[in-house]
Amino acid sequence: MNDALLTDLYQLTMLEAYQARDLAGPAVFELYARRLPADRGFLMVAGLEQALDYLEALTFTPEAIDWLASTGRFSTKFLASLADFRFTGSVWAVPEGTILFSGEPWLRVAAPLPEAQLVESRLINLMHLSTLIATKAARCVLAAADRPLFDFGMRRAHGAEAAVLAARAAMIAGFSGTATVEAGRRFQTPIVGTMAHAYVQAFGDERSAFLHYAQTFPGATTLLIDTYDTARAARIVAELVSQGVSVQAVRIDSGDLAVEAQRVRDILDAGGATEVGIVATGNLDEYAIEQLLRHRAPIDAFGVGTRLDTSSDAPTIDAVYKLESYAGEPRRKRSVGKETWPGAKQIWRSYDSDGLISADCIALEHEFVANAVPLLQPVMRNGCRLGGLPSLQDSARKARAELATLPQSLRSLRAPAVLSPRVSDGIHALAAQADRLQQVD
Amino acid sequence: MNDALLTDLYQLTMLEAYQARDLAGPAVFELYARRLPADRGFLMVAGLEQALDYLEALTFTPEAIDWLASTGRFSTKFLASLADFRFTGSVWAVPEGTILFSGEPWLRVAAPLPEAQLVESRLINLMHLSTLIATKAARCVLAAADRPLFDFGMRRAHGAEAAVLAARAAMIAGFSGTATVEAGRRFQTPIVGTMAHAYVQAFGDERSAFLHYAQTFPGATTLLIDTYDTARAARIVAELVSQGVSVQAVRIDSGDLAVEAQRVRDILDAGGATEVGIVATGNLDEYAIEQLLRHRAPIDAFGVGTRLDTSSDAPTIDAVYKLESYAGEPRRKRSVGKETWPGAKQIWRSYDSDGLISADCIALEHEFVANAVPLLQPVMRNGCRLGGLPSLQDSARKARAELATLPQSLRSLRAPAVLSPRVSDGIHALAAQADRLQQVD
Repeated sequence: MNDALLTDLYQLTMLEAYQARDLAGPAVFELYARRLPADRGFLMVAGLEQALDYLEALTFTPEAIDWLASTGRFSTKFLASLADFRFTGSVWAVPEGTILFSGEPWLRVAAPLPEAQLVESRLINLMHLSTLIATKAARCVLAAADRPLFDFGMRRAHGAEAAVLAARAAMIAGFSGTATVEAGRRFQTPIVGTMAHAYVQAFGDERSAFLHYAQTFPGATTLLIDTYDTARAARIVAELVSQGVSVQAVRIDSGDLAVEAQRVRDILDAGGATEVGIVATGNLDEYAIEQLLRHRAPIDAFGVGTRLDTSSDAPTIDAVYKLESYAGEPRRKRSVGKETWPGAKQIWRSYDSDGLISADCIALEHEFVANAVPLLQPVMRNGCRLGGLPSLQDSARKARAELATLPQSLRSLRAPAVLSPRVSDGIHALAAQADRLQQVD
Repeated sequence: MNDALLTDLYQLTMLEAYQARDLAGPAVFELYARRLPADRGFLMVAGLEQALDYLEALTFTPEAIDWLASTGRFSTKFLASLADFRFTGSVWAVPEGTILFSGEPWLRVAAPLPEAQLVESRLINLMHLSTLIATKAARCVLAAADRPLFDFGMRRAHGAEAAVLAARAAMIAGFSGTATVEAGRRFQTPIVGTMAHAYVQAFGDERSAFLHYAQTFPGATTLLIDTYDTARAARIVAELVSQGVSVQAVRIDSGDLAVEAQRVRDILDAGGATEVGIVATGNLDEYAIEQLLRHRAPIDAFGVGTRLDTSSDAPTIDAVYKLESYAGEPRRKRSVGKETWPGAKQIWRSYDSDGLISADCIALEHEFVANAVPLLQPVMRNGCRLGGLPSLQDSARKARAELATLPQSLRSLRAPAVLSPRVSDGIHALAAQADRLQQVD
């Protein structure tokens, strides 16, 4: 992948048009969700590390410039200028793991117009994906009530980057590990795994398959028991355990998981294998997990796959990146249903006496909101990161603390309450000013 | 990304277990959709080029092996063996652009068990994504009735690979271009673009924004007219055209697109700008396009974004990769609701006298079905590609020809008919044999 070309063509044509007119004044863009997807009471923001990596490393290689030249679309002067292109701006953002609501900036970019413009496509692409998955994962964490969750979603994630970043986002939101090996290498996340049906099928019978696996990996064996006959396989596991074979857990991947888990638990317990845990997988998501636990299914851990890595019930967020001011003047879009609020902003959060979120206010950056905490922090200046970003573990701690501030009404998996941040008087006044400026024709 | 580590951990632990037991006999796996997503009458298969690229290039680098060693999970013998790991098997597949139905293999891998096993996660990951998007795009093509379609979906695609491969899949299915520059570079697809609202906002008024853009890019200018006031902007465009400024099209991105398009068409025509086309964008998909054209909206081309690149109404396909035989013996999984059919298979397709698909039969590879055409072809032998793959243009031609074979009942965007392929007598007999073999306990 060529990072600088990971953009929409119009960003490059706009850049050339800006250059031709010397439009390189300071611009402020903000990235936020216009609205939350259905059944989402909150967003958990993630992806900042990838966004800043992108901004710091962004250059047009000679190969990229040559290729752009080959399209015949751009002037020689513009192409020559790309060799020196760097992102030199400032970024404010909320820490990864922060809970936000509609209209609240995840990130604010202040930079010369061409720089701030070019990065739109990839900044949204990166932050949207991680926030989408962290939000989905956080909902699974709420549903699982302290049972460990594992990401098993690589195969139906949308490509390699989606798989690896989904694993990372899930870890921030509170998952305990991922099956995706490359995510383990890149982000030092715990990696976990069991066995596939093909493994049992290759042996053709469960007993020899299980025994051989337990001998190959003593101490940490999870055996898949639904390939042929779940009850029979559970009895085999109990026998093996009674013969001294070490088995950590069994995995059930089909059937009515509540019924199967209870049946397997009974068989294991009757055979004395009370220490063997049960891992459930197969089309799981927060809704299924909540339902299984409501039915008191004796499941000790969940593997969540496709529906996590694609956020399948809400596979997109209406995330946008909008110009809020240019050359010191407020800017505002008035397209029907897609109006924006002008000006560089800060989010202020208030809490009740129990430490739960009580209200948010979106204000201009110089405004002050009493009894509230500002959420956006400076993270990059002059194109350079300000200090190191938190570790994945730190972000996971942040996320856990954030989830603890969520009132019950916003935690509901279906039709949650809606927290609508207040928009400050300063913003309202600036919008009126922007409308006056822009309506000059 | 490290390709060999783009896998689930259990593939690697199974490989070590296979090695410990010398289970390296010939295995046959098939990749197929267990069922089609809701509202999908067909799948359009894509992604074969990426799948074969992956298989040909697959190696464990010294860095990958060192990292695996650092996890402490694997034996020295197993780690040493990875240095020589290559995919040496054979692949049969349907050409990209082929239409398939549930249970029909997109791809069949025959290889020593460890090789065929390891590649499961990434093969599904690649083929699932491209097939998902090609299918969604093909539905847009059916809805658009010969109007050009453009992929504008990069920003909310799930990561970079999803964006680039979605653009490619859309081109196979019949799109005319993409805004994603990197897709243009990698796949030589036409790249297209208009302008963003920020561009108009930076100028603060439409007239100077439009005039400047048209002067910078004479001849191929599409102007975005809904930033402040769509009707006013359309009048400005008509004036500019009457003054000799060359404008190819206007883009509308908000409001009721059918109403707005008609209003804009009337304004442009009244101003003499009859040659200026209208491009519609904004939350479009096959359903919206069908609706707009049913209302005779005067729209000349569509930009389809987020809902295409995420296949948002059906963001996953239940695609699986299953062991069908091992060491010459049939293998079959009997998990509740997830049973498989054993044996290496071929798909045979029959057509009616109008050239429309009338029936499919899934048979064993040595079976023959009269008056039908076999769909799976050999594409790789001993780990090497057999000849070059078709160009993107050839695959797009193939896809167009395939769409022409779809009977009306399978084209419906909502609740289409279901084509259930017949399963041959040979497969039924083999399944009974597999059950007998596997139930030995």
